[in-house]
Amino acid sequence: MRYNEYFRSRLADLQDEGNYRVFIDLQRRRGAFPEAVQTDGAARRDVTIWCSNDYLGMGQHPDVLAAMHDAVDRCGAGAGGTRNISGTTHDHVLLEAELADLHGKEAALLFTSGYVSNWAALGTLASEIPGCIVFSDALNHASMIEGIRHSRAQKVIWKHNDLEDLEAKLAAADPDAPKLIAFESVYSMDGDIAPIKEICDLADRYNAMTYLDEVHAVGLYGPRGGGIAEREGLMDRLTVIEGTLGKAFGVVGGYIAASAELVDFVRSFASGFIFTTALPPAIAAGAAASVRHLKASNAERDLQKTRVAQLRERLDAQGIPHLPNPSHIIPVMVGDPVKCKFISDTLLEEFGIYIQPINYPTVPKGTERLRITPSPVHSEADLDHLAQALETLWARCQIARMPMAAQ
Amino acid sequence: MRYNEYFRSRLADLQDEGNYRVFIDLQRRRGAFPEAVQTDGAARRDVTIWCSNDYLGMGQHPDVLAAMHDAVDRCGAGAGGTRNISGTTHDHVLLEAELADLHGKEAALLFTSGYVSNWAALGTLASEIPGCIVFSDALNHASMIEGIRHSRAQKVIWKHNDLEDLEAKLAAADPDAPKLIAFESVYSMDGDIAPIKEICDLADRYNAMTYLDEVHAVGLYGPRGGGIAEREGLMDRLTVIEGTLGKAFGVVGGYIAASAELVDFVRSFASGFIFTTALPPAIAAGAAASVRHLKASNAERDLQKTRVAQLRERLDAQGIPHLPNPSHIIPVMVGDPVKCKFISDTLLEEFGIYIQPINYPTVPKGTERLRITPSPVHSEADLDHLAQALETLWARCQIARMPMAAQ
Repeated sequence: MRYNEYFRSRLADLQDEGNYRVFIDLQRRRGAFPEAVQTDGAARRDVTIWCSNDYLGMGQHPDVLAAMHDAVDRCGAGAGGTRNISGTTHDHVLLEAELADLHGKEAALLFTSGYVSNWAALGTLASEIPGCIVFSDALNHASMIEGIRHSRAQKVIWKHNDLEDLEAKLAAADPDAPKLIAFESVYSMDGDIAPIKEICDLADRYNAMTYLDEVHAVGLYGPRGGGIAEREGLMDRLTVIEGTLGKAFGVVGGYIAASAELVDFVRSFASGFIFTTALPPAIAAGAAASVRHLKASNAERDLQKTRVAQLRERLDAQGIPHLPNPSHIIPVMVGDPVKCKFISDTLLEEFGIYIQPINYPTVPKGTERLRITPSPVHSEADLDHLAQALETLWARCQIARMPMAAQ
Repeated sequence: MRYNEYFRSRLADLQDEGNYRVFIDLQRRRGAFPEAVQTDGAARRDVTIWCSNDYLGMGQHPDVLAAMHDAVDRCGAGAGGTRNISGTTHDHVLLEAELADLHGKEAALLFTSGYVSNWAALGTLASEIPGCIVFSDALNHASMIEGIRHSRAQKVIWKHNDLEDLEAKLAAADPDAPKLIAFESVYSMDGDIAPIKEICDLADRYNAMTYLDEVHAVGLYGPRGGGIAEREGLMDRLTVIEGTLGKAFGVVGGYIAASAELVDFVRSFASGFIFTTALPPAIAAGAAASVRHLKASNAERDLQKTRVAQLRERLDAQGIPHLPNPSHIIPVMVGDPVKCKFISDTLLEEFGIYIQPINYPTVPKGTERLRITPSPVHSEADLDHLAQALETLWARCQIARMPMAAQ
């Protein structure tokens, strides 16, 4: 076995498929985001970011940055240990209380990332409850899939957002077996939204727990930013709500909110929680400031909705195909990995517009896309520039258009 | 199935065993660390931390904090996306170069934590190399165990630090199968150190890759803080060196350093790397400042060695049993979970000394201990106070002593 040769050959395969990922080296300009500076070898280029998950620009909000500066001054850099061994700081405790309150739950538990929160919480619930069957939406995020896989519990995949299929599968399972239905509210790549109420109804009927991933919804939906479940008055019906501090809240980290017992159970048995260094106090303090701000302010959410609607209108007028959905995510469909990367590269080099191409395995082959996330920090001038650039490229590249909305 | 009742009964079992964990709520005092303020209900108490993994106090080093402040001012709070989708910042690129240089490797790759770096890198190597057999030291950290388990590759556990056993198991395996030997340099709970050179010799003989976890060694050993492998001139013989930015470097995050091909392979195939939000630029910048400082300065390492030796002398003089080992970790053995927690509670309440009791499952039952980590920011007065407190408690609690060193 020649290890490095093997690695090279697998990487060459990715190149051949057009699926090799090149990371764009960015320096966000605090206060001017979505503006950033790209470093590309010796060259530097001003770019506007259109594919960030800092959906509301909270990553540059003065309250968030002030809280981070203050915590660094008070407590220093890192937490210095796992939560159990010297790593629980008062900032963690306050943030967990803030998150429990956000979701109307008794308790919340922080993880180092949203990925780890899904992997550790689902992995622990499914493996530590003997005989647990996990009913997993077919389009669940990789972190949920890996957590369920890791648990080695029985997994039943139901068709994406399909209540009939979910019910048939619940009905076919042992009525006495513990059950957990795992799904998301806003799906990241298509931007569609789950029928949460109906899933909770099924969970009640079949005595299943529900685990809802709201990472693309917290901060963004509901009168206090509690997510789709808050908007629809359903938070009390969910067993676990999982969220992130790294998208709309603009910082980093993940969490679950649930009953005191469930949270204590995951806290006590989840390897991925127990054996890892706690987040720095400055991260916890910054995230708490962000959550607090978005509980009280709708200005960011309102302006985001406006910008999303404005971009959809422009795309419709130009006949540029995008998936219709009820969320803030605008997937512009290209359907070919090489073309998708070419458009992205050209947007960056000619127009200073950065939209990462989304290729396999993040989305199925043949559905390659540009995933655009308009935010309240994008101006109308930014919108004009983007629409004009897309118009130019669609003309140049002879990519299929939708029937013109105006015709 | 009554879920909350089930959770309660499992938690009650932990309580009965003395293994239920209560987190200590701390506010580190920047500039005065290891001093901190504990919040306990309505009470607040000044404490000295003696169990931190911020081994050198770098979590309050002015260069580290200045770099974090500067990055928050330049770039804001979070990275805003995965490394592939707008989340690679220039600070990540610079830190990865710093880490590759630290270990004399072609490349390095950041993860959100040391746990995730082990889990994702081992999980990916073992699952993506068909037929790979992983030879895992019996005392490897939970994150390595979970990564190997997740890969579903064949796992062969060899006796802790036992070269004969490792060789017998390598010799018994298919000579043509890809092989990976996974081990640590400094083991966290016993503080013993692996025979790295001899393991590399075996790896050469049997054409195995080596994966060395140096999380309790980076920053602390070697002339530039490259770890035990640097100290012993062995870095070039290891396939992968894994480290953390959350212990001696004082911030948070994990990484691997290896050949360009291997790093690119893990970068391209590791779910736990691909599908997670990147660390905030301020974390990357703070960590890079810490790594840079400890490449050039031996003052912190030297004073730590002095403090470790001084505490061992005191414990020997008092006959307080501690595991001998060649590292900076001093495990004071108690051997009973209830006594261990009692001593820890009393140290905190009567003496303002915080040392977390280490119980099962972190260590085997019957080996419960106080794990003490002297650092250059502990003063000789701190040492006196600790030694006096332990003397008082050992007398009061009638815990076994070693034969007095002086007798």
